[in-house]
Amino acid sequence: MESTRSRLAQRLAEAGQSHLVQFWDELTPEQQAEMTSDLEAMDFQEINKFFGSAMEVSGSSKQEKMDTRMEPVPREVLGSVTRDRDCLKVWEEEGLRCISQSRVAVLLLAGGQGTRLGVSYPKGMYDVGLPSHKTLFQIQAERILRLQQLAEQSYGAKCCIPWYIMTSGRTMESTKKLFSRHSYFGLCKDNVIFFQQGMLPAMDYNGKIILESKNKLAMAPDGNGGLYRALGTQGIVEDMDRKGVKFIHVYCVDNILVKVADPAFVGFCVQKGADCGAKVVEKTNPTEAVGVVCKVDGRYQVVEYSEITLATAEKRSADGRLMFNAGNVANHFFTLAFLRDVVQTFEPQLQHHVAQKKIPYVDTQGRLIKPDKPNGIKMEKFVFDIFQFAKTFVVYEVLREDEFSALKNADSQDGKDTPTTVKHALMSLHHRWVLNAGGHFIDENGTRVPAIPRDGPAGSGTADVNQNLKDGTDLPIKCEISPLVSYGGEGLEELVSGREFRPTLVIDESGAHELVKNGV
Amino acid sequence: MESTRSRLAQRLAEAGQSHLVQFWDELTPEQQAEMTSDLEAMDFQEINKFFGSAMEVSGSSKQEKMDTRMEPVPREVLGSVTRDRDCLKVWEEEGLRCISQSRVAVLLLAGGQGTRLGVSYPKGMYDVGLPSHKTLFQIQAERILRLQQLAEQSYGAKCCIPWYIMTSGRTMESTKKLFSRHSYFGLCKDNVIFFQQGMLPAMDYNGKIILESKNKLAMAPDGNGGLYRALGTQGIVEDMDRKGVKFIHVYCVDNILVKVADPAFVGFCVQKGADCGAKVVEKTNPTEAVGVVCKVDGRYQVVEYSEITLATAEKRSADGRLMFNAGNVANHFFTLAFLRDVVQTFEPQLQHHVAQKKIPYVDTQGRLIKPDKPNGIKMEKFVFDIFQFAKTFVVYEVLREDEFSALKNADSQDGKDTPTTVKHALMSLHHRWVLNAGGHFIDENGTRVPAIPRDGPAGSGTADVNQNLKDGTDLPIKCEISPLVSYGGEGLEELVSGREFRPTLVIDESGAHELVKNGV
Repeated sequence: MESTRSRLAQRLAEAGQSHLVQFWDELTPEQQAEMTSDLEAMDFQEINKFFGSAMEVSGSSKQEKMDTRMEPVPREVLGSVTRDRDCLKVWEEEGLRCISQSRVAVLLLAGGQGTRLGVSYPKGMYDVGLPSHKTLFQIQAERILRLQQLAEQSYGAKCCIPWYIMTSGRTMESTKKLFSRHSYFGLCKDNVIFFQQGMLPAMDYNGKIILESKNKLAMAPDGNGGLYRALGTQGIVEDMDRKGVKFIHVYCVDNILVKVADPAFVGFCVQKGADCGAKVVEKTNPTEAVGVVCKVDGRYQVVEYSEITLATAEKRSADGRLMFNAGNVANHFFTLAFLRDVVQTFEPQLQHHVAQKKIPYVDTQGRLIKPDKPNGIKMEKFVFDIFQFAKTFVVYEVLREDEFSALKNADSQDGKDTPTTVKHALMSLHHRWVLNAGGHFIDENGTRVPAIPRDGPAGSGTADVNQNLKDGTDLPIKCEISPLVSYGGEGLEELVSGREFRPTLVIDESGAHELVKNGV
Repeated sequence: MESTRSRLAQRLAEAGQSHLVQFWDELTPEQQAEMTSDLEAMDFQEINKFFGSAMEVSGSSKQEKMDTRMEPVPREVLGSVTRDRDCLKVWEEEGLRCISQSRVAVLLLAGGQGTRLGVSYPKGMYDVGLPSHKTLFQIQAERILRLQQLAEQSYGAKCCIPWYIMTSGRTMESTKKLFSRHSYFGLCKDNVIFFQQGMLPAMDYNGKIILESKNKLAMAPDGNGGLYRALGTQGIVEDMDRKGVKFIHVYCVDNILVKVADPAFVGFCVQKGADCGAKVVEKTNPTEAVGVVCKVDGRYQVVEYSEITLATAEKRSADGRLMFNAGNVANHFFTLAFLRDVVQTFEPQLQHHVAQKKIPYVDTQGRLIKPDKPNGIKMEKFVFDIFQFAKTFVVYEVLREDEFSALKNADSQDGKDTPTTVKHALMSLHHRWVLNAGGHFIDENGTRVPAIPRDGPAGSGTADVNQNLKDGTDLPIKCEISPLVSYGGEGLEELVSGREFRPTLVIDESGAHELVKNGV
């Protein structure tokens, strides 16, 4: 035991991290044992190297130069659901074919906790308040189930879409428990594979690891780009290979509209022979806080909104669109071959990004301090850092109102990306599905509600004279369709065509039901 | 007196409105006198005719047919700030030339009260909480002043932009008082001309005028299209003619970004030889609650969002844009000659629109009832009803983030079109003006804030991994530029270029100042 301690002390001293044990003598034996095992598991030389190169990259004034180096995505690598409508059917069939051959997997980035949401459990477990009270995880699981069914119907072969779920140390246990408690939402347990992203210590600006208490290091997940290291260390690439997976759709847990394993996106990428693809939505406002996919020095990457000048953000093409308008929504396509190269060769070459943070710490007197300005950094890699290594990179543009609404924040006055906004986005999409399948909604007086309901009470008359340019996401029509019934709006005609419904309308495997008002 | 009463009673009986005096014997002599004068001023035959034809039009199932009759605005009548950038300078010079010749007037629709805002005074008097605490009226007045100055500088001639302000019975007195108290915000009193839109009674579905109390009719303004009748009855067209006005820019009070007498818009319309023009912003989401300018049966009009089916709202052109995307923002151009024709010939042909409303009323027992569903109608005309009479109609497309942010509602959870959103829209625009003029913002640590500030505290580090597709209007940079200094971003270089500012930044006639934090 003593020799363990002295070996550790020496390693800490060599790494310049001896301050980590400054409170050693005040710890209980249990705390000492736990801390020893934490510290022994850490590779301080590697951590110090990460810090050095992350700070070096961060220090260079890259913003100044970025603007002149950026080029927009060329039209020939772009597929668009609005501009290439003639191709959609073909792409979708190609994607369904790949799915029917069990060659497509989905990979979920679910390492984050719902801190900004005000909850301590994983975001995927959040119930946004739909009539069904389904969690984000359940919605995604049911989309996978339905898509397997659609592929089977189209191609007559039983198939499977394996679901790889990356959690972090903080979210693994509760995530697994939820899935187990819900019998994997009907999916085959063997095809839901959990793995864990790595953690890195938070460091002060001098490269010293921060203590969050006398016996605990401040640790944070290593960014969603930690995916690639985890894919290697936890044998996920091999598992995919064994399962016959060729194509992987990667996405973030917080997008309630996500089309998991989107056959049109997958089919587009496959037909273009791409090894890497990004789904985007059009950025229409120059100051919108979204990263854009573009070329920098001839290689694809995501440039964050904070990295460019306003002049660049405001640049427009001759068609009037923003020149840099490929808004990243963290929805990516990879071939397994590409992922293997990334894991083995490219990922280790990537430096971490530096995120300056306010990190609570104990001072030399052992007092807990909550800083009011950034006092240190967390080190992260991003999932899109590897775009630059793609041989054939493509971009697929979809409609925001159909495919992207992220849950980030608790409900509040300014109300962006909240449980309410994502719930409304989903209900608005399902409302549109019903209308497009020939269904109608009526109000309490039996009057048909217009497709775009007005602000005031339904049926309150003709036009609002002072037109109200409102975001489409706050429609009042309450409507939820189970993913088990429809993945993307298909198969609803026989349930709704020519029928009139009073909201709340719920469509699930047992049919279309109106919920009584107080029941919601 | 008795004969007056019996004459009135007979008129009421003939018009089927005798119920209006059912409580006559319970009224005080003063109430009787007041009601008599109210009733004597009314043309019941005309009101009944309005009701009949409004209900007839409203009853026809126009929605069903609308979709097949609609055509988008052809490209050749469209001018666009994003797609016709080469022409902008020429249009603006043409507009400034017209202004310098005192041929351009602005006409403000300000009849509405701030009911939905939660205040009982006119909307234009609202202070949205800018550092300067200027009201909407003051902002608009100062833009007029600055524009006169710019035109004078460009063309060397002293000029004037007369400002016609249409109020309603409810808003006239307080509006006039505000202007008088503020010495017309520096404008020449003679060039601020108030006039009043008409009122019409609210009616039940059987055409009976509704009593809001035993001695008072329920009255409402006759819609912003009441403008045309008021222009005639109050001699405004003649006044414009006397002043040499040839072109009129009409707008609504609630748009904090409005470019009053926008020289580029005016110049575009004049160069195209248009007698009528509409400024629009691109509608990008099919379910956005905005009316669209389009052709119906070959004539231009605004089709309200509630009049079309979802299938039509979702239609797209080959370029991927929505086919019906010319979102009306109640910003119109008219020649005086066209307005004269409208007043004399066309307006009387227009039927009123029917707005079903919940209208508080007294029942036959004299009890005040507040209905919980619509029980009657208000009759309104709309300012855009006359587009159909234009000989040469044009459409001018501008950027929403630069020109449109309307104040409609009180601050609240879902937060659309509130004091906060319009304040942020204005500060975001001014922030961008400063950046584009070469200025910079720094945070409390002296670090430059990126052009698109991130979500968290300024300077909190690199990219947010889970990109947040936020609306651009909630930028935290506090910045306000007096319209007396800059109408549209011009003239700021000498004040800000190469300088660094800590928000709150205020730029006014005495220069650029940073406000101390608690001062705001």
